[in-house]
Amino acid sequence: MSSLFAQRVSRARRSVLRELLKLTERPEIISFAGGLPDPETFPRKILAELAADEILNNYEKSLQYTTTEGKRPLRAALTRWFSEDGLHYDMDQVIITSASQQGLDLVAKTFIDPGDAVFVSLPTYLGAIQAFRALEAELVGIPLLEDGMDLDFLEGAIARARRQGHRPKFVYVVPDFQNPSGITWSLEKRKRLLEIVSREGLLVIEDMPYRKLRFSGEPVPPLAALDEEGRVVVLFTFSKVLAAGLRLGALAGPRELVEKVVTMKQATDLCTSSLIQCIAARFMLEHDLSAHVRRLCEHYRLKRDAMLQALERYMPEVEGISWTRPEGGLFLWLRLPEQVDTERMLPRALEHKVAYVIGAPFFVDGSGRNTLRLSFSKASLQEIEEGIRRLGKVVEEELAGLPAGRTL
Amino acid sequence: MSSLFAQRVSRARRSVLRELLKLTERPEIISFAGGLPDPETFPRKILAELAADEILNNYEKSLQYTTTEGKRPLRAALTRWFSEDGLHYDMDQVIITSASQQGLDLVAKTFIDPGDAVFVSLPTYLGAIQAFRALEAELVGIPLLEDGMDLDFLEGAIARARRQGHRPKFVYVVPDFQNPSGITWSLEKRKRLLEIVSREGLLVIEDMPYRKLRFSGEPVPPLAALDEEGRVVVLFTFSKVLAAGLRLGALAGPRELVEKVVTMKQATDLCTSSLIQCIAARFMLEHDLSAHVRRLCEHYRLKRDAMLQALERYMPEVEGISWTRPEGGLFLWLRLPEQVDTERMLPRALEHKVAYVIGAPFFVDGSGRNTLRLSFSKASLQEIEEGIRRLGKVVEEELAGLPAGRTL
Repeated sequence: MSSLFAQRVSRARRSVLRELLKLTERPEIISFAGGLPDPETFPRKILAELAADEILNNYEKSLQYTTTEGKRPLRAALTRWFSEDGLHYDMDQVIITSASQQGLDLVAKTFIDPGDAVFVSLPTYLGAIQAFRALEAELVGIPLLEDGMDLDFLEGAIARARRQGHRPKFVYVVPDFQNPSGITWSLEKRKRLLEIVSREGLLVIEDMPYRKLRFSGEPVPPLAALDEEGRVVVLFTFSKVLAAGLRLGALAGPRELVEKVVTMKQATDLCTSSLIQCIAARFMLEHDLSAHVRRLCEHYRLKRDAMLQALERYMPEVEGISWTRPEGGLFLWLRLPEQVDTERMLPRALEHKVAYVIGAPFFVDGSGRNTLRLSFSKASLQEIEEGIRRLGKVVEEELAGLPAGRTL
Repeated sequence: MSSLFAQRVSRARRSVLRELLKLTERPEIISFAGGLPDPETFPRKILAELAADEILNNYEKSLQYTTTEGKRPLRAALTRWFSEDGLHYDMDQVIITSASQQGLDLVAKTFIDPGDAVFVSLPTYLGAIQAFRALEAELVGIPLLEDGMDLDFLEGAIARARRQGHRPKFVYVVPDFQNPSGITWSLEKRKRLLEIVSREGLLVIEDMPYRKLRFSGEPVPPLAALDEEGRVVVLFTFSKVLAAGLRLGALAGPRELVEKVVTMKQATDLCTSSLIQCIAARFMLEHDLSAHVRRLCEHYRLKRDAMLQALERYMPEVEGISWTRPEGGLFLWLRLPEQVDTERMLPRALEHKVAYVIGAPFFVDGSGRNTLRLSFSKASLQEIEEGIRRLGKVVEEELAGLPAGRTL
């Protein structure tokens, strides 16, 4: 049987995180592992009303097939939503996807031939690694600095990829409050990246699941708003601003390109759920998604602040320990001294009843073993304080070289 | 920009049918074109109640991410549903998909390397052609006879594909009330196909969207129920038995294979909508889907009968005109004399205010220009009678060689 599998299957790996996440789900553990939005933020009363009404009174549309591009009222609402960020699209430049993971898959299908080079940061979003690997991209890792990718490194890497016979296709970025690092790109780096892709004839895939979740500081324009050549494809998802279980998002970009993506989507799933689209369209038309997002920001800001304060308080003051201070999103990123392996440290953390996500899977070059991701979205303020206290102890014990099972 | 597209994009074509279908949507036209289920059959009151209840009272699950494999209650309900047909799966052999088009995409991703040979009938389901072409399969067409594929032809085609360097991977079949032809495979052919794939070391993809919509005659066991070697992958969808707009289905098969499909699905969309899964699971647990399907069969049987009777009455009695008499499903298939080109005939049909789907796109070898598909699912009994009367006139005029715009 296994001789019948496609080559991409032998290369694809199931996420190690999935297995690790299972360990962290015991109720006594304070988990900063999963990147789940807080379900208490889902506007359930409104969604329940809209769902029932759409099913009862609009069943001829909400329960029937729809077009591959998606429902027009939803696409129209999204063009207005995007324009708040300086992104001016016509409706036919915006198509509905089954959340941004499908956006990644469609981008991969549209652009990647086996061996084509795709440039991602170190670290980068795991779902992107999986989507691009599944279409057999050659993933090239570029260090991520505090203000975005190391663009000198990127220029060298593009040249190297060409020399090695890998056709460069696009640079994948999550420029606002990146998963996993929480890092936001500076305006200068955004502009310079656009110059580079223009010179090199490449595209940028700009994934913006967290962009609207800014708690502090000033918004930086999206790359797509700075793009004058039609080189940026935007991926958006409702997962973090409405509800993750809907599985709804959008892809927007140059018309010629979006048309090809539609052809690929047709082959992939015909269309995204009509019912889910109808519910989201009604929400955007009759309720104020921006106001809802402002409430989310307030909610998550408190949690981020609690986590940053707890880290100041409980992390040992040791050379080589640092963490990001994100201005939004759901995650921050902890770097430990080089000798620490966060996968090896995980059993000790679970003993102390605290969990995180190991950093290495987010690095396509196998580095990052001394890093970890902390999500502040789901734990309560009390749990954040207590969980980081426990994590401080775990790190202390690890640095002291204590065998697992022994505590300080 | 276009130099950045993957090779599969230049080969993929958007469905010509989509463009043609737009022509048929004018309200004065009686359309037998779209394969849409009748929205009046969607159990909207129950679905509205379940949706509201799941959102209000189970929001921590229904609006949150779920596992790639899908919700366990739904998968458990599906194992019981499948067992009614002699298909005995453990829950971990059944995964949830975003309807069967995603099942086709995942099968393609899991098995097809560029140039691999996939065997489909002439005609076959258009969505399958698109999904397999998008992953760059070499599609090999096998004539479809009244009782299933021409299996002698298939054996020769497998040998030819090997000689030409195309690795054979699987045979794709819709053995019950096929879209587009309405044809059902005999038990003998099902058994013989399993012998062939066993000898050749191939798989069968058994797509069963219409299987439960049997109005007359006796059910024939699914290939998967006859399979003793674990060579059959089953695709199921809720589109035709519950509501198409949900975009919900399942894939079932040998454990080793399903595991790989899950890895591909993770890269494709992480998971199918939790909310939609919760609604369908509740429907299956608290209501009787089989009883609902029996009511559907009664509803569609009357329409099929009306269409068959109208065809007898209104089709000219001419050598070379024939149609299928399906025992279920949503479609029947009309074959016209060789000189008729149903695409060329379509403007005449639209003049007479009746529409159908041209046959050629369902044939991977470019044949079938004298065929067309008639869907009896959505028109009323009166519309069926009147629409087929008009179609009879269209065919008469076409055979008389009248220029378009002139009527008999």
